[in-house]
Amino acid sequence: MKNIVILGSTGSIGTNTLDIVDRFPEEFHVVGLTAGSNDEKLEAQIRKFRPAFAALANEAAAAKLRDRCADLPVKILAGNEGVAEVAQSQDAELVISAIVGGAGLLPTLAAIRAGKQIALANKEPMVMAGALMQAEAKKHHVRIFPIDSEHSAIFQSLEGHRREDVKRIILTASGGPLWGFSREQLQDVSPERALQHPNWKMGSKITIDSATLMNKGLEVIEARWLFDIPETQIEVLVHRESIIHSLVEYTDRSVIAQLGLPDMRTPISYAMRYPERMPLDLPSLDLTEISTLTFFKPDHARFPCLQLGYEALRIGGTMPATMNAANEVAVEAFLQSGIRFLDIPDIIRSTMEAHAPRPIDGLDDALDADHWARDKAESLVHALTR
Amino acid sequence: MKNIVILGSTGSIGTNTLDIVDRFPEEFHVVGLTAGSNDEKLEAQIRKFRPAFAALANEAAAAKLRDRCADLPVKILAGNEGVAEVAQSQDAELVISAIVGGAGLLPTLAAIRAGKQIALANKEPMVMAGALMQAEAKKHHVRIFPIDSEHSAIFQSLEGHRREDVKRIILTASGGPLWGFSREQLQDVSPERALQHPNWKMGSKITIDSATLMNKGLEVIEARWLFDIPETQIEVLVHRESIIHSLVEYTDRSVIAQLGLPDMRTPISYAMRYPERMPLDLPSLDLTEISTLTFFKPDHARFPCLQLGYEALRIGGTMPATMNAANEVAVEAFLQSGIRFLDIPDIIRSTMEAHAPRPIDGLDDALDADHWARDKAESLVHALTR
Repeated sequence: MKNIVILGSTGSIGTNTLDIVDRFPEEFHVVGLTAGSNDEKLEAQIRKFRPAFAALANEAAAAKLRDRCADLPVKILAGNEGVAEVAQSQDAELVISAIVGGAGLLPTLAAIRAGKQIALANKEPMVMAGALMQAEAKKHHVRIFPIDSEHSAIFQSLEGHRREDVKRIILTASGGPLWGFSREQLQDVSPERALQHPNWKMGSKITIDSATLMNKGLEVIEARWLFDIPETQIEVLVHRESIIHSLVEYTDRSVIAQLGLPDMRTPISYAMRYPERMPLDLPSLDLTEISTLTFFKPDHARFPCLQLGYEALRIGGTMPATMNAANEVAVEAFLQSGIRFLDIPDIIRSTMEAHAPRPIDGLDDALDADHWARDKAESLVHALTR
Repeated sequence: MKNIVILGSTGSIGTNTLDIVDRFPEEFHVVGLTAGSNDEKLEAQIRKFRPAFAALANEAAAAKLRDRCADLPVKILAGNEGVAEVAQSQDAELVISAIVGGAGLLPTLAAIRAGKQIALANKEPMVMAGALMQAEAKKHHVRIFPIDSEHSAIFQSLEGHRREDVKRIILTASGGPLWGFSREQLQDVSPERALQHPNWKMGSKITIDSATLMNKGLEVIEARWLFDIPETQIEVLVHRESIIHSLVEYTDRSVIAQLGLPDMRTPISYAMRYPERMPLDLPSLDLTEISTLTFFKPDHARFPCLQLGYEALRIGGTMPATMNAANEVAVEAFLQSGIRFLDIPDIIRSTMEAHAPRPIDGLDDALDADHWARDKAESLVHALTR
């Protein structure tokens, strides 16, 4: 029986995680759940899984949740501090970090500093402050298990093989919902169309990131820190069918890959129960049914965000946090129909160009860059939409 | 520095193994080389790699080799006993078993009983007497590392993961040189055409086995013993491009696979230097260049030999040795143009149907079945060709 906390339990990864807990009640015990503002869904989860602690980042929603759960023996906390407090719950052994965006940085770091093992779905903490996260993890003897399907694939493809024999890692990208679109079509694409992902059911932020390929840019940065490998040894391969989740090439030219039907429960359960695997009642991969797997080079002209990711990583310091914050603002503005799809990379690039990168010596450096970039990107959005 | 013996050094695997030794002279020292009858090629190898021992199974060829190497400090042995003696050389640590066909059984078993680690390219020993081979390996604390690309892929895909979590193993098959042929076309195919393999450069026996899909039948049996997994958990997938060399599915539906451009030096060097990998100067796999991977179910109507392999494995005892011997006779008869391509499965099936299987308690049981089946198959060939 493993005691777990889920940060971001009402989101897509959180819901899938609870589905696994539900299937294997003898394996996991939920001690804490946190979310942003969805008090109704969190109440239902609390009633079902009976955690001792819960928190909502939104204080008004937390107050509503307290009323809803007045009959239950759960302690409900509020605000970012409340979320971070649940992340450090004394009984917790494993914290599933599944908050969307940069808001996950503080509670995830708090969990690491409290010595909790981490199952990481939230890529932004690694993007914003990867070196710091890994230094803290080392200091507190914490292992960080990736949940992202690509990073889980890399992790699984590294297991049992020598790190010094790795030649390169190859992240696969589906190409997202708009891969076949021309630049002209991209210019006028609606948020509704951009949200139609062909392979993965995910939240809206990550689906737009998938459409711009920024998701892959963030993943390159995440991989750099998760696997301690320079960006020159990280490649991206467009693979439309999302069956090969990623690959590792070794010095003898042998390539190990992890494959499967797209279902987040496989990487989630592996991170939760490593090194054991759980007998999930999911369909098996049948390659004869899929019949064909196809591969392409990324198109940097139509989808410039991937290159921005590599660029931010090369520059280093506060630049990845800056890029990430500008992206969050731009995606939000696109979803609210304030800006056009191709404005997203423009806003990110302009924000990055205006930024004077500094080293990250502590969390504040990352958070300062994040705040600065949000202001800058918002002013750029404002200029486009007024 | 590892001391090695190569059984079958003049064949395709033997030559590739010596190419690796040549590239990494500080890693390996050749203490023994054996071959069948090619005294000229073996002489050249002896002059280059300077082993202390060499042997030719053919006694007349061995006598010629002695004359050729009169100026060298090499001890030259003759006959199957001579080959087996080199396999047990006192200094040898690793024996690369790369003899073609059933002739490899005796010397490979001798090497195991002498406590040598084994790199196994020769699948027939496992087919003829897999249970016995594994029992002897266990008794003498010998590890058997597969060289066959499919089994090396399975081996690599199992490393770092728990055996109890394995759901099934999936051997890929190129489909061989005649995959697209109709039954009518197969009926009249010439040995020259059947020898044109699209992906792999291999010896003629194994290339015909690839054309009939018997190679995959033999590999299913080999996998059963190498990985101690029942045949119900072994599947075969036709994958024309031979890029995914094989796959393992786990209980969480995660699939680990090994991929690469077809080059036997990768699995050979891995078996020779496990768990380290050697920096081979070979081209890297570029999936965007290959662009498309395709998958099909095996066609048992046109290529019945694969099913014969499963059948022999289910019946057990001496049946796999019987099937293997009948196949060797039939392939040889096809290559000498005595019989037609579709006579090969007919001869194997008729031999199996005539065989009363017995348990294998010792080597003699396997060898007796082998001899009986050769006689039977030869009489069937004779009936077809007279």
